[in-house]
Amino acid sequence: MTACEVIMKKRNGLPLTRDEIRFIVRGFVEGGIPDYQMAAFLMAVYFRGMTPVETAELTTAMAESGDLVDLSSIPGPKVDKHSTGGVGDKTSLVLGPMVASAGVVVPKMSGRGLGHTGGTLDKLESIPGLRVSLSLEEFLSNVRRIGIAIVGQTARLVPADGKMYALRDVTATVDSIPLIASSIMSKKIAGGADGIVLDVKFGSGAFMKTFESALELARSMVDIGASVGRRTVAVISCMEQPLGRAVGNALEVREALETLKGRGPDDLRELCLEIGSRMLWLAGKADDAESGRRLLEERLRSGQCLDKFREMVEAQGGDASVVDDYSILPKAAVVRPVTAASTGYVRSVDALTIGRAAMGLGAGREVKGAAIDHSVGIVLEKKVGDRVRAGDVLAWCHARDDSSAESGIDAVRSAYAIAPEIRAGYRLIHAVVSAHGVEAYGTGG
Amino acid sequence: MTACEVIMKKRNGLPLTRDEIRFIVRGFVEGGIPDYQMAAFLMAVYFRGMTPVETAELTTAMAESGDLVDLSSIPGPKVDKHSTGGVGDKTSLVLGPMVASAGVVVPKMSGRGLGHTGGTLDKLESIPGLRVSLSLEEFLSNVRRIGIAIVGQTARLVPADGKMYALRDVTATVDSIPLIASSIMSKKIAGGADGIVLDVKFGSGAFMKTFESALELARSMVDIGASVGRRTVAVISCMEQPLGRAVGNALEVREALETLKGRGPDDLRELCLEIGSRMLWLAGKADDAESGRRLLEERLRSGQCLDKFREMVEAQGGDASVVDDYSILPKAAVVRPVTAASTGYVRSVDALTIGRAAMGLGAGREVKGAAIDHSVGIVLEKKVGDRVRAGDVLAWCHARDDSSAESGIDAVRSAYAIAPEIRAGYRLIHAVVSAHGVEAYGTGG
Repeated sequence: MTACEVIMKKRNGLPLTRDEIRFIVRGFVEGGIPDYQMAAFLMAVYFRGMTPVETAELTTAMAESGDLVDLSSIPGPKVDKHSTGGVGDKTSLVLGPMVASAGVVVPKMSGRGLGHTGGTLDKLESIPGLRVSLSLEEFLSNVRRIGIAIVGQTARLVPADGKMYALRDVTATVDSIPLIASSIMSKKIAGGADGIVLDVKFGSGAFMKTFESALELARSMVDIGASVGRRTVAVISCMEQPLGRAVGNALEVREALETLKGRGPDDLRELCLEIGSRMLWLAGKADDAESGRRLLEERLRSGQCLDKFREMVEAQGGDASVVDDYSILPKAAVVRPVTAASTGYVRSVDALTIGRAAMGLGAGREVKGAAIDHSVGIVLEKKVGDRVRAGDVLAWCHARDDSSAESGIDAVRSAYAIAPEIRAGYRLIHAVVSAHGVEAYGTGG
Repeated sequence: MTACEVIMKKRNGLPLTRDEIRFIVRGFVEGGIPDYQMAAFLMAVYFRGMTPVETAELTTAMAESGDLVDLSSIPGPKVDKHSTGGVGDKTSLVLGPMVASAGVVVPKMSGRGLGHTGGTLDKLESIPGLRVSLSLEEFLSNVRRIGIAIVGQTARLVPADGKMYALRDVTATVDSIPLIASSIMSKKIAGGADGIVLDVKFGSGAFMKTFESALELARSMVDIGASVGRRTVAVISCMEQPLGRAVGNALEVREALETLKGRGPDDLRELCLEIGSRMLWLAGKADDAESGRRLLEERLRSGQCLDKFREMVEAQGGDASVVDDYSILPKAAVVRPVTAASTGYVRSVDALTIGRAAMGLGAGREVKGAAIDHSVGIVLEKKVGDRVRAGDVLAWCHARDDSSAESGIDAVRSAYAIAPEIRAGYRLIHAVVSAHGVEAYGTGG
C-alpha cells in the first residue's frame, strides 16, 4: 500500500478500508507520509466526503494516535461536553458545575484554539490563581474527588488532530464535515468519557453558517459516537446573536456565576438546562430530558451548582472568593456606553460583528499563542426583540483606553439593526440529534 | 493575496485570474509556497478543472519560470513536435529528419521521462558516440546549420514543470487534462518554435486510455497554442497495439532507418506522413496536408530524409555509418521466437503488455536515472488482422540471457489474442484537431 494509492482511491470516490485510513493517519503522525500527501488527501476528502463508516474509522485512528485517557478507575457515569464555539459562549462554565452537582462526572479537556473571544480555558484563567495546565494525575485526582475538572488537553492527546488541523488551516480544507466531525470526536473519545453531549451552533457567529450544515455535522458526530460505543447527543442552537449578554473573558465568568445563582440571562440559562438535562439523561441520572431539567433547576435553587463551581476553582488553585466578590476579576480601565441612534425594536445583533468588536478590544486572539486581555469586552443591554428609544444604551464597551473604546463603540453599534416594527421571536434551540433521530424544537430563549 | 485564498477560490470552483495563477506558480518555484499548498491546489484543480483561459495562463506562467529559448536568429519556420508516448513510438526519429529535409527547422528538446521503453533520447543514444546533452549554443548552432537537433532539455527549461510533476506523481494529481496540457505546452512554448504538432495517442499502451480523453487533451493543447500565438495541430492516433514492429531502443533505431529508406512498417510510415504533412503545412511549406504528404514522399524516395538523419547523427557526435551498417548498434545476446499456440487471426496485440514485456527485458526504466539496456526488446512478426497458424512466429524476443528470454516469451505470448475469424480493420489515425476544429479520420494503418 502506498500513500499515493490511498489518495487516488479517495480521489476516485471509492470508500477506504480501516487499514488504509490507519495507514494514512499513522504515517502522517510518524512522519513517513509527508505534509504534501496529507494535503492532497485532505482535499480529496473535501471533494469526495466520507461514508459514516470511514468517518468513524478516521476518528478512531486519530484518537489512537496518542494517549487515551483511562477513566475506568473513577466510579460513576462520565459525560463530556463540547461546543463548536460562538460569541458569548460560556456554557461550559455553567454546565460543568451544574451537571457535576447532580452526580455526573465531568472530565473536560479543552483545546485553546483561536477566536473572537478566548476559549473556556482563557475565561477560567480570568480567575486569579486558577490553573488549567494540570498533569494527567492531578486531573484524574480532581475528577475523582469532586467530580469535575476543566483543563487544557496535553500535547499527547490526539497529536494527529493538531498536525492535521495545522495543515487544513493553510490548505483550504477546514470546512469539510467528516474532517470537522472526526477532529472533534477524536478528542472526546481520547478523553475517555462514556457519554458525549455536543453543543452545535449555527449562524453568523458560529463556524457552521446554516442550520442544515449544523445538522449535517451533528448527525455525523452522533453516528461516530454510535460506531465507537459512546452515547452521543447533539443540541443545535442559533448563534445569530451572542449568547447571553457578556462577551469577553472576565465578563463572561461573571455572567456564568450570575447564571449559577439563578440570575443569568434567559437564553444562556435555557441552553444550559437543555444541554445539562441531556447530560443527565446520558449518564442515567434522569429518565428523560424533562426530569433532568427539574433536577438541575432544583440544584440551581439550592446553591449546590454554585458550591461545585467554588470547589472546582479551589481544586485548580484559583481564588474561590470570586464567587461572592467579582471585584477580584480583572477590570477594564474604561467602560463606555453604546447608544441607539433611532427608536424601534432590535431586529438583529450580529454575532460575528460583536465577536470582531470584542477581538478588536483585545478579548480574543488571531494567532496561536497571542496574549489575551481578560478584562475587556462587551455587555449587551438590548437583544433581539427588545424595544429601544434613540439615546438608550444598547451595550457597554469595556476597553483598555479611550481610543480603543471609540472603535469598539462604532463596531458594536454597527452590529445592531433597529426596525420600526417587531418581528417573530428569536428561536434559540432548533433541534436535538441522537441515535434515535432528530427532534425538532420550538422553544425560544 | 495568500496561497490559501487562491486554493480556496479554485476549490470553490471560481476561475482564477492571471495574477493569482502567476502568484501560485512563481511562489512554488521560488520556494515561498510550500509543497503541501501546491498539492492541495493541484487536487482542487483535479476536481474543478480550469477554463481554457486559466489553462493558458498556467502554461505561460510555467513557461516563464525558466529560460525561454530564442530562435529568432535562425531563419525560416520552426516547428516542434511532441508525442504523448506509446509502445514502439519512434516517430520523432523518422519525422525530424524527414521534415527538416523539406526545409522546416526542427528544434526538438525532449525530457527523458519514464516508460516501458526509453524515450527518444535513449533511442538515439543506441547510436555509438551520439550525444543528446548539448549546450544551448551547440543546439542553436546545429539547428541553424542543418535544420535539426534532438537533445535533452536543460534543467533551466520550465523548472516549474519538473517541480510540479514530481509532486503530482506522488499526490494522485497526474491525470488532470489542464495539468497535462500545461505541462506539455509550457515546454514546447519555452522551446521557442512558431508551430507545434502534437502526436496524441490513446489506448492500452498510451497515457490517455480513451479516444474521448485524448480528444479533450488535444483540444486543450490546441486552445493553449491559439491563446499564446503558436500555431498548433494535434493528430490523434490509436495505441491499442504497438506502433510499427520494433519495441526497444536499438531495434527502434533500425526500424526508423528502414522507414527513412522507404521499407518501414505501413502504420509507422502512415503516421509519420500524416504528422509530417501537418508540420509542413504549419511551416507554410505546403498549402495543405495533401501536398505536404506528396512533398515528403518525394523526399523519402530521393534519399534526402536519410541524408538528413546522417547529418544529424554526425552533428551530435554519433557514428553515421549506422545508416548503412546496423551491426554497429548494440545487439542482444539471445534472440528467441514467440510462437502461436493456435490458428486464426490476430485480434489484438495488447500494447501495454508488450510494453511491460520490453521493460521486463531491460529496455525501459521504472525509476528516474535507472540504466537502460539499448540492445534488448521485441520485434513483432504478426499484428492485428494477420493470419497465423499454430507454430508460426508471432514475435522475436531480444534478451540478454535465456531466463530473461523465457519470461519475455511468456509475456509477449499473453499479449496476443488469436480468434478464428477476422474482425474489422484496426484504425490508426482517428482525428486531427486544429484551431479550425476537429477533422474525423478513417484511414487505416
